[in-house]
Amino acid sequence: MDIATVIGLILGCVLMTFAILMGGDFGSYMNAPSVLIVIGGATAATIAAYPLARFFSLPKVFMKTVFSKTTDPVALIKQLVELAEIARRDGILALENMTEQVQDEFLVSGIQMAVDGTDPEVIQTIMETELENLMERHEAGKGLLDSLGRFAPAFGMIGTLIGLVAMLSNMDDPSKIGAGMAAALLTTLYGALLANLILLPLAEKLGLRSNEEVLSKTIIIQGVMSIQAGDNPRNVQSKLMTFVPPTQRIIEDDGRAAA
Amino acid sequence: MDIATVIGLILGCVLMTFAILMGGDFGSYMNAPSVLIVIGGATAATIAAYPLARFFSLPKVFMKTVFSKTTDPVALIKQLVELAEIARRDGILALENMTEQVQDEFLVSGIQMAVDGTDPEVIQTIMETELENLMERHEAGKGLLDSLGRFAPAFGMIGTLIGLVAMLSNMDDPSKIGAGMAAALLTTLYGALLANLILLPLAEKLGLRSNEEVLSKTIIIQGVMSIQAGDNPRNVQSKLMTFVPPTQRIIEDDGRAAA
Amino acid sequence: MDIATVIGLILGCVLMTFAILMGGDFGSYMNAPSVLIVIGGATAATIAAYPLARFFSLPKVFMKTVFSKTTDPVALIKQLVELAEIARRDGILALENMTEQVQDEFLVSGIQMAVDGTDPEVIQTIMETELENLMERHEAGKGLLDSLGRFAPAFGMIGTLIGLVAMLSNMDDPSKIGAGMAAALLTTLYGALLANLILLPLAEKLGLRSNEEVLSKTIIIQGVMSIQAGDNPRNVQSKLMTFVPPTQRIIEDDGRAAA
Amino acid sequence: MDIATVIGLILGCVLMTFAILMGGDFGSYMNAPSVLIVIGGATAATIAAYPLARFFSLPKVFMKTVFSKTTDPVALIKQLVELAEIARRDGILALENMTEQVQDEFLVSGIQMAVDGTDPEVIQTIMETELENLMERHEAGKGLLDSLGRFAPAFGMIGTLIGLVAMLSNMDDPSKIGAGMAAALLTTLYGALLANLILLPLAEKLGLRSNEEVLSKTIIIQGVMSIQAGDNPRNVQSKLMTFVPPTQRIIEDDGRAAA
Amino acid sequence: MDIATVIGLILGCVLMTFAILMGGDFGSYMNAPSVLIVIGGATAATIAAYPLARFFSLPKVFMKTVFSKTTDPVALIKQLVELAEIARRDGILALENMTEQVQDEFLVSGIQMAVDGTDPEVIQTIMETELENLMERHEAGKGLLDSLGRFAPAFGMIGTLIGLVAMLSNMDDPSKIGAGMAAALLTTLYGALLANLILLPLAEKLGLRSNEEVLSKTIIIQGVMSIQAGDNPRNVQSKLMTFVPPTQRIIEDDGRAAA
Repeated sequence: MDIATVIGLILGCVLMTFAILMGGDFGSYMNAPSVLIVIGGATAATIAAYPLARFFSLPKVFMKTVFSKTTDPVALIKQLVELAEIARRDGILALENMTEQVQDEFLVSGIQMAVDGTDPEVIQTIMETELENLMERHEAGKGLLDSLGRFAPAFGMIGTLIGLVAMLSNMDDPSKIGAGMAAALLTTLYGALLANLILLPLAEKLGLRSNEEVLSKTIIIQGVMSIQAGDNPRNVQSKLMTFVPPTQRIIEDDGRAAA
Repeated sequence: MDIATVIGLILGCVLMTFAILMGGDFGSYMNAPSVLIVIGGATAATIAAYPLARFFSLPKVFMKTVFSKTTDPVALIKQLVELAEIARRDGILALENMTEQVQDEFLVSGIQMAVDGTDPEVIQTIMETELENLMERHEAGKGLLDSLGRFAPAFGMIGTLIGLVAMLSNMDDPSKIGAGMAAALLTTLYGALLANLILLPLAEKLGLRSNEEVLSKTIIIQGVMSIQAGDNPRNVQSKLMTFVPPTQRIIEDDGRAAA
Repeated sequence: MDIATVIGLILGCVLMTFAILMGGDFGSYMNAPSVLIVIGGATAATIAAYPLARFFSLPKVFMKTVFSKTTDPVALIKQLVELAEIARRDGILALENMTEQVQDEFLVSGIQMAVDGTDPEVIQTIMETELENLMERHEAGKGLLDSLGRFAPAFGMIGTLIGLVAMLSNMDDPSKIGAGMAAALLTTLYGALLANLILLPLAEKLGLRSNEEVLSKTIIIQGVMSIQAGDNPRNVQSKLMTFVPPTQRIIEDDGRAAA
Repeated sequence: MDIATVIGLILGCVLMTFAILMGGDFGSYMNAPSVLIVIGGATAATIAAYPLARFFSLPKVFMKTVFSKTTDPVALIKQLVELAEIARRDGILALENMTEQVQDEFLVSGIQMAVDGTDPEVIQTIMETELENLMERHEAGKGLLDSLGRFAPAFGMIGTLIGLVAMLSNMDDPSKIGAGMAAALLTTLYGALLANLILLPLAEKLGLRSNEEVLSKTIIIQGVMSIQAGDNPRNVQSKLMTFVPPTQRIIEDDGRAAA
Repeated sequence: MDIATVIGLILGCVLMTFAILMGGDFGSYMNAPSVLIVIGGATAATIAAYPLARFFSLPKVFMKTVFSKTTDPVALIKQLVELAEIARRDGILALENMTEQVQDEFLVSGIQMAVDGTDPEVIQTIMETELENLMERHEAGKGLLDSLGRFAPAFGMIGTLIGLVAMLSNMDDPSKIGAGMAAALLTTLYGALLANLILLPLAEKLGLRSNEEVLSKTIIIQGVMSIQAGDNPRNVQSKLMTFVPPTQRIIEDDGRAAA
């Protein structure tokens, strides 16, 4: 679970609630039709812009920003080096029994192909195509959040214009002008909050998450290709460690020395 | 037909109508001259920016976002694999009779060239040039919607400025100030609705639709080249399946195993 | 002449005039100093940003968007195929007499070089350099219109600020506030109209026009190189037709079959 | 000296002064603290963003947009062709005496290296590295003006917010509201004028100026390489003339015929 | 320490304080809840968008813009040339004793690898991967400041909307409208100040700082590769000097002549 996102979202909501309570009562800020205009309008525009199936993947996209487990690249490299050692010592077929202990499906399928004696080029092509598919799926998920994040403030402004026209066409009772204008501004407020508190941060997080996953998949591809080629485990390690920042790499080096 | 776009557009219109009825009567939001300024102005600017022929393709572009049938890439790959099997078993000339059963004209023309014994490089060049033309036509259609989507809010603001100047030059009767301002804001509202409810979502949809069509055309080109080269149907399938996300691919693999 | 641009500009002006007449009298919208601020300011900024010679090419740029004749690529390809037939039948020197019938100077200079026996690589380099120069000149023209289109709304806003400060520093007579504010808003209106009704559509048109011209020059370069190499006219045609959308190409194919 | 920039700047200032005098007295537009907020704020932000040395190069950057002499590429090509003729006739060492007549230091250093018998590849690498350095210095100068042009309107808005808060917290005397608001708007006006009248046009000019200088340096590099290789002066000319638009090139061709 | 950033930040704060004191008392501009909304909101959104570890690197990022020492590239080149002389005179192993005098860790590790007789290609790969990691870490730090700089004005606007709704729903006492509106505008002011006075200049500075560091690391990589290859120190110097602007290079040349 990604604690940072949860903390950020809760902190933002608490702060905004506090800000509202400072200035007045909560009731002036609650308005069901305004919620409908902003969330409904942004949803309608996004449905019109995307295929239905992709739109309905939205809850999964939200979940992904919070609950997706991240792979530690150093641990992953350790595992790949171990597999390389076994393959070198006992032959590549010995890896067949290891796949049960490996959790990452992408890595399992790669090792399986190596064990099956698939042509190295074919292994690489298949694994890279899957990586590209993964990146496109991530991009599509981020695109959904970006679209919602663009349409929410737009429909916030549309709601405010609708409210202003209603208020201005009906100014018989001057005492209601303030309340009318306050209600009109609420949709702009909702749109801005929805975009800046939730949608845009989550879209950015999704982008970072995608980068991490692409990194670990790239390490796996390099690792499987090295294992298949029967590289020396030491070389596999130093090759893969270049993907990791030097601070983490040095610690690893000590570990290797001790091993 | 693309249900999502229709649902999104209808949902958006229903929501906005509802939002308007909440706040006042529908009449205050209807204003023929305002419609004229926004739609007319955006249309005039777009006509000035594009050749007439392209501008008149606009209804076709609108239709395309809703009614264009999408090709299922997995079904397409199945069909290509079948054709590859026939070509392998009975010779490439046997495909001549099959073209009647194939609906995709692009695929038919590709197979026809292969049957005619056209040079593979020529086939590839011709098919790729047609794909490029297709992408440019899509880009042009999307450009039209993007232009309208940029000009509509601009003329909405222009209409509001015209209305504000009219109101401000004529403030003898203070009771009419509200109504004048309401009328002035209507064009901004129209421009924002036109852009965010219709034009921008459709432009985005058109982009996604284009990507899908490019994908299926790319699969067809690869497939025709493989059929022409007399590749093993199994290899054709595994080669083409790399264009499809793994979830769909696995299902296909089972199917192949069962076949 | 480009009818679409003329129609779009006239339609836009008629619509805006109509919109103004709906709301009030024309007089409130006419204000010489406001015209001066917007057009003068945008012009001054553009003069400061560009060399004088390029700024004075502005009328030519305007003319170009409306009056430049477009070359029909299909007719151009026909002409190139005819020239290829003559060169093949009567030798490349026979083209010397044909150049008088060819209108496109770029094509004439290309054929002349081929007739003179210039080295093919030199011909290609010279023609491509001229094409690059053409694209840069177009880009420069479009840059001028883009600059004006950015500065016009900026000086519109500056004029409004100047007007507002004047009005606010002098509020002794409340009855004049409305008129002062109306006058202040006029410059914003002028800037927005100038940009969205004229400058931005013309800049976009210029971009499309440039693309068309680049396309026909590219076809000419390919054609001259093929003629110089003595290619079979049929191959020349099929090679050049790949630059044209398939619908136009099919018609041409029929024509070729009939020839 | 670049007349266009001077004319543009003066024209803009005259027009704005005129616009101000139309609406009121000059005094309402002069406000020392407002000048301080906008210019001081934009300066402070730019100092914080750039190293001190680069910030202090600002006056030199301003001077450069107005006073830098432009090199006529056709005259430059003529000079290079003359040098090529001398080198061909009297040997490359004969150029040693010519360098005193050449003004462009970049060209002098290039010829000097050729005379010294430096390896051609080394000459090219050194001259191209200097060209890259030149482009980076230009880019840095343009970056300074762009930064100021972004920060000036931002601090204009900040000044207006400060003024509005002051006015709104102190509304005991309603007769002063107008004057307070006018003063508040002045900073926005200053920021917009500074950016659109001066900073953005000069930044754009600097970009064009850089392109010209890069062009002439590129011609010099090509020329020196050709002279070093002992190319035929005619070939040097036709090779270098491709960098110049055809209209200028044709005149040159006549000149060459007459020579 | 980077004096320019410190001067710029202090100058900006002094100017803004002065601007505030000109217009009114400082008290009207101090408002704890407004500070909370802007800083808290922007922080919450940034926490939600980034992993916790990266968010907590923010103070280090701030420090880096001010306190990071810059490497003088000319001094660095001198040092590399000295090392090249020693390596040439006394053999590469003689450098082992020199590493204690070298401060740059990146250079030390490079020399160490050369002394250890590591394969040149491996040295280059390892050093370049570390450079890429460095650039990504810089990019990440700049991304944090950019995010904060985007979210701060957004939450400033959100705070103003919250304040306006509070004021408008509660207009019983007209004398409080001014104060309410002033308070509402404060968050927009805070957001604009935070972004334009601090966050955006620091983000820009960080980008420039990164470029400098990349330059010196690139020089080091080139230098170590030259030392490893046993290049002539003179050639090492002229090769590395191409990374430095010519003015600095000429001085260096004199120095070399005198040496």
